[in-house]
Amino acid sequence: MDNKLHANISVRLFTDEKCFGPGIALLLHRINEHKSLRSAAISMGMAYSKAWTILKSSEKSLGFKLLNSTIGGKNGGGAMLTEDAKAILAAYDEYCAELKKYADKLFDKKFSFYKEKQDSKE
Amino acid sequence: MDNKLHANISVRLFTDEKCFGPGIALLLHRINEHKSLRSAAISMGMAYSKAWTILKSSEKSLGFKLLNSTIGGKNGGGAMLTEDAKAILAAYDEYCAELKKYADKLFDKKFSFYKEKQDSKE
Repeated sequence: MDNKLHANISVRLFTDEKCFGPGIALLLHRINEHKSLRSAAISMGMAYSKAWTILKSSEKSLGFKLLNSTIGGKNGGGAMLTEDAKAILAAYDEYCAELKKYADKLFDKKFSFYKEKQDSKE
Repeated sequence: MDNKLHANISVRLFTDEKCFGPGIALLLHRINEHKSLRSAAISMGMAYSKAWTILKSSEKSLGFKLLNSTIGGKNGGGAMLTEDAKAILAAYDEYCAELKKYADKLFDKKFSFYKEKQDSKE
């Protein structure tokens, strides 16, 4: 029986409102790769306008700019992450990775009863 | 400036599909309190039909029943959590609580740069 229980952890950062999460993190990674907000959005199957809105809303809540760019224009302009964006993205990625490691160990401890239950059914 | 960055962690359990998360956990707590699926749903501002669907879908993925009940009828019947439901709810709550403790400490470590940045702005 392949019915393995596992946990997915998602991390969202808030100030007074939501400002950073898996969506903006992925968007920033793609911008870093594609050097373009438009191409990054396309690569995620996201509308350019939505990517733009997510970015602006995150910048507003965080209190700093995420992109050095000539956004707009025919090709959506070029885009590069600011130093602040690199710092928060790195912190977020490390935070999620370390949390996941701890979460996986804790999961085995807390949910062993479920595994035993499933095993006894087989 | 009150712009304190913090993290919200959400935990969702999966087998082959999503089977448990904050919504069903809250619903089970409310059922335990109200001894009724209908009253529990109302207390959360949730349609009875939605509560029912969430419950059935969670039971299907987990592979066990969550409620001992006479669901349906004029008042939605009485409802009590099964022993399995109590076990998974307790495990989920403990898991989330311990994870949160670790996450808060880790947050201070990983995001101290942001706090310093904000402080220097003041």
